[in-house]
Amino acid sequence: MSTLTCPDPLPSPAEDCERLHKAFEGWGTDEGSIISVLAHRPAAHRRQIRRVYAEIYGVDLLKPLDKELTRDFEVASSRSRAVLLWAVDSAERDAVLANEVVRKWSPENRVLIEIAVVRTAEELLAARRAYQNRFKRCLEEDVAGSTHGDFRKLLVPLVSTFRYEGAEVNTSLAKTEAKLLNQKIKDNDYSHEDVIRILTTRSKMQLLATFDDYNNAFGNPINKDLKSDPTNQFLLALRAIVRCITCPQRYLEKVMRLSISKMGTDEGALTRIITTRAEVDMQQIKEEYFKRNSVRLEQAVKKDTTRDYEDFLLALVGQVDS
Amino acid sequence: MSTLTCPDPLPSPAEDCERLHKAFEGWGTDEGSIISVLAHRPAAHRRQIRRVYAEIYGVDLLKPLDKELTRDFEVASSRSRAVLLWAVDSAERDAVLANEVVRKWSPENRVLIEIAVVRTAEELLAARRAYQNRFKRCLEEDVAGSTHGDFRKLLVPLVSTFRYEGAEVNTSLAKTEAKLLNQKIKDNDYSHEDVIRILTTRSKMQLLATFDDYNNAFGNPINKDLKSDPTNQFLLALRAIVRCITCPQRYLEKVMRLSISKMGTDEGALTRIITTRAEVDMQQIKEEYFKRNSVRLEQAVKKDTTRDYEDFLLALVGQVDS
Repeated sequence: MSTLTCPDPLPSPAEDCERLHKAFEGWGTDEGSIISVLAHRPAAHRRQIRRVYAEIYGVDLLKPLDKELTRDFEVASSRSRAVLLWAVDSAERDAVLANEVVRKWSPENRVLIEIAVVRTAEELLAARRAYQNRFKRCLEEDVAGSTHGDFRKLLVPLVSTFRYEGAEVNTSLAKTEAKLLNQKIKDNDYSHEDVIRILTTRSKMQLLATFDDYNNAFGNPINKDLKSDPTNQFLLALRAIVRCITCPQRYLEKVMRLSISKMGTDEGALTRIITTRAEVDMQQIKEEYFKRNSVRLEQAVKKDTTRDYEDFLLALVGQVDS
Repeated sequence: MSTLTCPDPLPSPAEDCERLHKAFEGWGTDEGSIISVLAHRPAAHRRQIRRVYAEIYGVDLLKPLDKELTRDFEVASSRSRAVLLWAVDSAERDAVLANEVVRKWSPENRVLIEIAVVRTAEELLAARRAYQNRFKRCLEEDVAGSTHGDFRKLLVPLVSTFRYEGAEVNTSLAKTEAKLLNQKIKDNDYSHEDVIRILTTRSKMQLLATFDDYNNAFGNPINKDLKSDPTNQFLLALRAIVRCITCPQRYLEKVMRLSISKMGTDEGALTRIITTRAEVDMQQIKEEYFKRNSVRLEQAVKKDTTRDYEDFLLALVGQVDS
């Protein structure tokens, strides 16, 4: 469920464009107006605003949104990066985030997993299309070009898959593959091609059945058995995949929690989760967050951020009750 | 260019349905009418016929088209398989062909390569969608499940890729990767992950530049260097990929030629190429065929096939001139 709050009825895109244009004029930018327009409009309406803005003023809205910026979201301030990520379509947003990763990938980075597994098959495909439109290459070639070894073997098929999303489950296959996964885990053969094949090609429903069978047959959730070496980044990646399939909101809550609890908030991660999930399942993530931390997510965000950046994120996740 | 000949104007789909329905009635099926309708209608019109037929007669057109058949194209006679493949959309046709392969894959089988590489990125994606609709699994999991070893390493990414199709070429990358390919070929390390990565993720334009650089730098076309062991099926698969990228029509001409020259025509391959390419580039394939064999393709098809099957294929590739 979305945490976005929007006026009803919505102003027309042209009215919104006019307000935005006024906010950009003069000496300083009127941040309040930008936030009160963009952070309170649903995706389809924002798309129209961007289109209409270009028609009326002859310039991509992204440009005045961050004047110092040359469409390189990475070097933007946290406020600008948040606003820019929010201003583009979800598919383009994922494309930009994925591109940030491939340009500085490291084994600790789990953003590709988040994008490839949390998203639906159609959403991942839309992100791949947007990636091509924007970067003139395909996502899988950039992932292949920036990763190596076992991670490449895992991540390339993970971002290339177009999973089946129907409800059909092959129960005998689930049993066989639960056994196969257990065997490879017992042998510490985590990057075996069968492990990768199962995790990257089977439907999520099928995998849920497989993980259930794993638990029933071997007395442990698969993710517990993948904990044997907590410093092994490949194992951590496999566990992230399993969690993104079994409990995406709990996984995303954890990413939020870690980004906030870090010395010096990880604003990149905080912005990513809020901009990508505000209109999808931020309500559930907030509930998970409260359950786990006994603090409301809005409070935590408020405590860890400042000024326009704070205002913008809080507008997206829902204001703190007074 | 298509070899299909269609009346102008086209009859309405409802008229065509009525003619087909009449052709199915009575003691024998009126093959002539079926051919004169279906084999002379473009894809969009055939799609409408199938839709309208289901509306009027409450049954999928595929059913009366082959009464003995329970939608298992493989056990159909050559005539029925040809008509059925032709009656469905190109994406569903590719899905059916790919599924035939994964159910009885062998290293000699190059049909997955043909489908994955000759098709455009959007066509391959449409085939993957159609595969899911029809078989309730994704293509890549079935390819992974039915292949193994080096072939699995090659074919899974090959069918999963969504290649970039813009004109941009990175010339320095082409040089680097030409060198890399040459090195791996010299080391007989044909299934090296870089070879597979390059062939399965780079755009076709990029690969054409890479193959050109290869030729310039090492004095041989890459496919000549891949000929070192003519019994190695993996090498033959790599060569098929290169040919499907560099000269798809010549590649398809060869498949036609071999299917015809076999003792006992390979009707499966003949039907596949004709039904998949009649509306795409059959004209060019025919020209390649004539250049190579000094016999017109229609003559060769006529000589090697009989009765309704012959009539149907000839209607698709264009009649023999009298």
